[in-house]
Amino acid sequence: MTDPLHIVVIDPDKERAFLIVDGLRETMDYKISVIGETLGLARKLRDLEPDIILIDLEDPSRDSFEQVITALGPSERPVAMFVDQTDDKMMRAAIDAGVSAYVVNGLRKDRIKPVLETAIARFHSFGRMKAELEATKTALAERKTIDRAKGLLMKARGLSEEEAYAVLRKTAMDQGRRVSEVADGLVTAAGLLL
Amino acid sequence: MTDPLHIVVIDPDKERAFLIVDGLRETMDYKISVIGETLGLARKLRDLEPDIILIDLEDPSRDSFEQVITALGPSERPVAMFVDQTDDKMMRAAIDAGVSAYVVNGLRKDRIKPVLETAIARFHSFGRMKAELEATKTALAERKTIDRAKGLLMKARGLSEEEAYAVLRKTAMDQGRRVSEVADGLVTAAGLLL
Repeated sequence: MTDPLHIVVIDPDKERAFLIVDGLRETMDYKISVIGETLGLARKLRDLEPDIILIDLEDPSRDSFEQVITALGPSERPVAMFVDQTDDKMMRAAIDAGVSAYVVNGLRKDRIKPVLETAIARFHSFGRMKAELEATKTALAERKTIDRAKGLLMKARGLSEEEAYAVLRKTAMDQGRRVSEVADGLVTAAGLLL
Repeated sequence: MTDPLHIVVIDPDKERAFLIVDGLRETMDYKISVIGETLGLARKLRDLEPDIILIDLEDPSRDSFEQVITALGPSERPVAMFVDQTDDKMMRAAIDAGVSAYVVNGLRKDRIKPVLETAIARFHSFGRMKAELEATKTALAERKTIDRAKGLLMKARGLSEEEAYAVLRKTAMDQGRRVSEVADGLVTAAGLLL
């Protein structure tokens, strides 16, 4: 048994918030919190720790829109957003901030569930690519560090490349650390000592 | 002056296709083609070379849905998709295939333009990340090749790492090629010769 998903609904309009909560209750078993006042939103979200965020802004001013987007922070969970009015700039800002579903002029009780599900699916699809990007960046950075460490060893101790790498690997095994960690330590130490 | 965007509308239902074309004509200057029969879709899309694809499938069978998704091929342009009925599996398949806007039960004339714009914005946002991933993967692969080439030179000619890299760089400059290309050629040649 897992806990039901915790959804935070952000909606300054009470009636529309009720409609959304109604639409959610009819379809799935959620824990639902509603935020009506977007002042201090970032802190409220930190306190609530939602699994999913659903935002309905109707006709946001540019300022209030930006405030909400900023409060979302780095996208660590699916965010679905309903607006009735938008412009290109707002739309791009929302999508670049990681809003997984951006729905213009489409708030209807029977569409809340599919929009939320689309947001979740897109969030996971995007997350896989983000994870691949992070892993590739890390591999590249580690490789650079290991190269630098090898170069230092080759120069300081007159080793061949293979020998230098063998030294790094043996040290890593002896210390139960990763080769890239040993290399990183070596590069840092060399910067201090030499 | 740029040519107007070429949109291909895929819709087996004539009336809904008309509604979409109407919705598009009212808002922007597009060149519009309509595909009603999804048989041979991949070839039709190749012939038409659209800038954007808009698909409306109402209540697709799993087979026809998969056929359309497959025909889309690798996502080199924004795709927006309207369906009235869906299940989780279809939705995930569409999103993983690069459908930039997946709209369930939300086809309405006045929403066609915002959905299309969201699809375009999301396509570009996703494209930036994809480009970053490709660039990082390439950098990592090139670095591996250059390392291998350096190792070969160090062994074959008794060079230090710096000297080996200098040889690669000088050859690249002399031939107007990239260091990674020279390294790649060296690794291939060594595989044939040694």
